[in-house]
Amino acid sequence: VNLKLFPPKKSPCLPRDSQVRVMEDTVTNAEKSFGQFCSLLAAYTRKTARLRDKADQLVKQLIDFANTENPEMRATLRNFAEDLAKVQDYRQAEVERLETKVINPLKLYGVQIKQTRAEIKKFKSVRNNEIKQLEKLEKLRQKSPSDRQTIAETSVQRASVDASRTSHQLEETVDTFQKQKLKDIQKIFSDFVTIEMVFHAKAVEVYSSAFQTLESYDLEKDLEDFRAKMHGVYGRYDARPPLMDTTLSPALPWSLAQSAQSTIRSQRKEAVSEDDSAEEDPVEDLRGQAQRLNQ
Amino acid sequence: VNLKLFPPKKSPCLPRDSQVRVMEDTVTNAEKSFGQFCSLLAAYTRKTARLRDKADQLVKQLIDFANTENPEMRATLRNFAEDLAKVQDYRQAEVERLETKVINPLKLYGVQIKQTRAEIKKFKSVRNNEIKQLEKLEKLRQKSPSDRQTIAETSVQRASVDASRTSHQLEETVDTFQKQKLKDIQKIFSDFVTIEMVFHAKAVEVYSSAFQTLESYDLEKDLEDFRAKMHGVYGRYDARPPLMDTTLSPALPWSLAQSAQSTIRSQRKEAVSEDDSAEEDPVEDLRGQAQRLNQ
Repeated sequence: VNLKLFPPKKSPCLPRDSQVRVMEDTVTNAEKSFGQFCSLLAAYTRKTARLRDKADQLVKQLIDFANTENPEMRATLRNFAEDLAKVQDYRQAEVERLETKVINPLKLYGVQIKQTRAEIKKFKSVRNNEIKQLEKLEKLRQKSPSDRQTIAETSVQRASVDASRTSHQLEETVDTFQKQKLKDIQKIFSDFVTIEMVFHAKAVEVYSSAFQTLESYDLEKDLEDFRAKMHGVYGRYDARPPLMDTTLSPALPWSLAQSAQSTIRSQRKEAVSEDDSAEEDPVEDLRGQAQRLNQ
Repeated sequence: VNLKLFPPKKSPCLPRDSQVRVMEDTVTNAEKSFGQFCSLLAAYTRKTARLRDKADQLVKQLIDFANTENPEMRATLRNFAEDLAKVQDYRQAEVERLETKVINPLKLYGVQIKQTRAEIKKFKSVRNNEIKQLEKLEKLRQKSPSDRQTIAETSVQRASVDASRTSHQLEETVDTFQKQKLKDIQKIFSDFVTIEMVFHAKAVEVYSSAFQTLESYDLEKDLEDFRAKMHGVYGRYDARPPLMDTTLSPALPWSLAQSAQSTIRSQRKEAVSEDDSAEEDPVEDLRGQAQRLNQ
């Protein structure tokens, strides 16, 4: 040991209580905040997944309902349900990406914080040992100021060099920690924003197509189908006895007239199903017929 | 009553059981489906509101965290939090619009269905009365085929005309109901899609700005601030006695050297806070200094 170096120049780098406190605060605050960010973003992701589930139920319900409707509305609702399902696929991708690129890095961050915290703890214990050693040396020096001076000073120097090295290690640790923290914040939230942006852009795209689908729905064509169906049951149930046959004699003219009308309706129904775009309105037609008959 | 009209031509319009069943099925199916759509979309809206709440918490947490960070990261996180809050404002608008333009119309639809159902019930009761009357008349006719024939036929005609009118009313009711139903489906889901599309488009816009904010974050500038802060505590706590003064005599050279170093750091800190963009690295500088002193 070169005693010319005494007083050791490195020892001033030994952090004081307040500086250690700044370092500890940095780590503690990061630990707390990142923990909260992690659980909030995990909750955000869960809520997104629940929204996806609800929309999936809506898709299922739309398809079920579509199957009970006439061809025009059935096709419209099926296409819409398909688009809505597509949005949920993108939402699922959003959920998975949030887990991979936002929540997992935040969890890993927790591990890194624990390591940094352990390093600070190690440093503090080294530092406390040094303080005790310095106190001991000071007492020795006061008891025998002359003969033990050299030994004491050498020991003080050694203790100071140790503490200085630890101090530099700590500073480097906290510096690296802070740098990584700031980088991670930027990276994690940039990823969050990118994931959200991609999802929303895809949703806009798909909903634009869904909007076109719904706009191009032909109500009149569907109503024709419905009216044909409503009257068509006469034709469909022709094999069954007419309404009053079981209670009234076939001689009742009302009953016979109904049978004749049935046949007309049955034919109309077939015409409509053969050509869906037919402009004629069966119900209006029948009403006109009834009016003419009553004149 | 003109008896020449007998057999009444309107009576064939009297719907049969199967036709009434189609009408009832249309209404029942609509009631069930719209009820399910209503509760699913209400749940979807609630989940959206919960997602908004979570994001609001994230905004709050971002602002809290920003306040503990150095100016560069503080500004970045605050801007990001502001953008995230803006997206939640749009989400709130989405929630309100879904309630007004999707859920409320679906609820109103329930009222309309009840009315239609009441009309069908009314018709069925009228129809049942007519059947009873026809049965009664038929019995009369069988008992006295000759003398009561005219009266019976007139009554049958009257009953048939009544039933025909009711039947037309029902057909019109169901037709109007179906037309309104199809229109409403188209309108409600178009509104749903439009509301979602507007929200997603706004979200893309705001997140694009948020992405720019996060991308333009200057990590190095922030690290300088942090390093200055970490070392600056020496300057800040200058009024307090140096580390070992309470336990060691001022004669100990280490203690004196530390005081001198303190002054240098204090000055550096001021220089850094005067000019945030300074390229010098205080930690690296001090390390270099220490190395030179040890050579």
